[in-house]
Amino acid sequence: MSGSLTISIDAMGGDSGPEVVIAGAALGLERNPEVRLLLFGDEARLRPIIEGYPRVAAASRLVHCDVAVAMDAKPSQALRHGRRVSGMWQTIEAVKEGRANVALSAGNTGALMAMAHFVLKTMPGIARPAIAALWPTLRGESIVLDVGATVGADARQLVEFAVMGEAMARVVFGLSKPSVGLINVGVEEVKGLGEVKEAGRRLRASRLPIDYLGFVEGDDLGKGTVDVFVTEGFTGNIALKTAEGTARQIGSYLKQALKRSLMSRIGYLFARGAFRALTEKMDPRSSNGGVFLGLNGIVIKSHGSADAMGFASSMDLAVDMGRSDLVARIARDLAAYHREVEADGADKSVSEGNKG
Amino acid sequence: MSGSLTISIDAMGGDSGPEVVIAGAALGLERNPEVRLLLFGDEARLRPIIEGYPRVAAASRLVHCDVAVAMDAKPSQALRHGRRVSGMWQTIEAVKEGRANVALSAGNTGALMAMAHFVLKTMPGIARPAIAALWPTLRGESIVLDVGATVGADARQLVEFAVMGEAMARVVFGLSKPSVGLINVGVEEVKGLGEVKEAGRRLRASRLPIDYLGFVEGDDLGKGTVDVFVTEGFTGNIALKTAEGTARQIGSYLKQALKRSLMSRIGYLFARGAFRALTEKMDPRSSNGGVFLGLNGIVIKSHGSADAMGFASSMDLAVDMGRSDLVARIARDLAAYHREVEADGADKSVSEGNKG
Repeated sequence: MSGSLTISIDAMGGDSGPEVVIAGAALGLERNPEVRLLLFGDEARLRPIIEGYPRVAAASRLVHCDVAVAMDAKPSQALRHGRRVSGMWQTIEAVKEGRANVALSAGNTGALMAMAHFVLKTMPGIARPAIAALWPTLRGESIVLDVGATVGADARQLVEFAVMGEAMARVVFGLSKPSVGLINVGVEEVKGLGEVKEAGRRLRASRLPIDYLGFVEGDDLGKGTVDVFVTEGFTGNIALKTAEGTARQIGSYLKQALKRSLMSRIGYLFARGAFRALTEKMDPRSSNGGVFLGLNGIVIKSHGSADAMGFASSMDLAVDMGRSDLVARIARDLAAYHREVEADGADKSVSEGNKG
Repeated sequence: MSGSLTISIDAMGGDSGPEVVIAGAALGLERNPEVRLLLFGDEARLRPIIEGYPRVAAASRLVHCDVAVAMDAKPSQALRHGRRVSGMWQTIEAVKEGRANVALSAGNTGALMAMAHFVLKTMPGIARPAIAALWPTLRGESIVLDVGATVGADARQLVEFAVMGEAMARVVFGLSKPSVGLINVGVEEVKGLGEVKEAGRRLRASRLPIDYLGFVEGDDLGKGTVDVFVTEGFTGNIALKTAEGTARQIGSYLKQALKRSLMSRIGYLFARGAFRALTEKMDPRSSNGGVFLGLNGIVIKSHGSADAMGFASSMDLAVDMGRSDLVARIARDLAAYHREVEADGADKSVSEGNKG
């Protein structure tokens, strides 16, 4: 696949509509000129926009779709009304049918996950998919999953998240042995939720070649203590949004503080370059994109409020993911893990215990 | 109690030892000159330190204790070896016996909770205590609980946390009708964990005079969308540490950025005042102290790494809490809630479902 890579794009998705998606695609094509695009959406709306970007016009094929999934549609509604006919559905179906290597949408997350789950199906032995996010840290970037695909995960699923996240870290960061940690409320083995402790025991005992470093805590996320942070979707989503909220809060304090006096305004003029660098570091656009893992195909969710630059960086991620044999690699690792679980019979009691 | 207020202090607790505790107590007494202190710890160690602070010497009574609980002791060990004889134990017992209005310790959190639980016992009908934290927000401060007393909470416990947090907000913020939100992964009623949805239904249906605003998300913490954020201890602890980690991460980016060039260093000189204001806003010392709620007495945990200023602000909190009839008020509100639950028979199925 190193020659031609095709990305299918839900061109009507996102809070700001197709103008931003197409402008982002143009930026993405500048950086990845060999990529081909399959654009799904309303032809009458899209055609004039695409004409403004010769690069997009040259590299893409436009497929008209009557239906666009609303940003506030309920996933169940979207599945019912958008089945087959919506641009979002067809974007995903292109991956299933091998016409595209990876699907990309800035649309409604719940609807995208519901459709991706329905169309691509989970990989053999995987109960539920996960959403993996790239998290900026003091050491660079880490992968955090699950950040909200589903809530509640048992020990077996947490280990599956570890396997999938580790495979993604090899691809995205180019690491041969990414480190993995389980998020817990303390680093001692005696603390935490039953399923987290059990997942820790299994990762320690496993013969899988995973560099498992043990439990990590919430403040390890910013430090980047490990390359892959594993947690259940409820906690992961709340941690992600808490961090985003804290970053905005501090940004707002900083703005207020710098406006306070003439002296601080003068200081700002001198330190402008420094603030620009800081803003870039804190800019969620530079690591934009949640990756759906555990399905028979890769779907990438760009932030709904992303601008063209943000959409372009999720396209970079799509290129990295599309070029790799990530799904095959995850399938191989997971099969090994599931064979191990069956051989040990270790899973029985715990999954029964979780049915409560 | 407005005349005399007595705080019992575990004088040997904290990472930096009694020097910081006594210096912090001196600062706290400057701001609250009417307060009396009961200090528990090693007399030979404490006496010379106290002599350096005439204000502390005048306002306190020192009680010698042979045993100090180590910062890294396991809670079970601390309970076994520190029973009755340790300073931490006696600090809590002073509240139980009515010799102090509130207990304050910068010691080992797990040991303090285990002892407080054992000595003071939970209030009637409360299964488990919670730790409430003061969270700095763009609107001022909010209360978040539970930030890690126990992991896993069912719907009934989440409602109890709401009742306790609301009562604390009245006392600490002086509000007549503090708003309450449940942390979830989305604001829609259909999303989230079963126990969170059930707690939301109960808070909506309840005749308790609680201003329940519905579900909130992780990024609402920084915004201060509600006065009281309710969540289960595992998620609450991870959210708290994620926010602390993110704040440190951004502080570190800012420092790097400002050192980058001569221009930015000059800018820093001009904007120094602004940065000082920012640092104060971000300073965890200004809202230092976790409050143990749900026990028959108030225990406040100061940050182990707090300096004298941090310890003094946890003393301010102890004064606010000690002056109020918080325990009585919580007992009254909880009794009303439990009567409601029994009348409706609503709790039966859920608490059974959670035994799993």
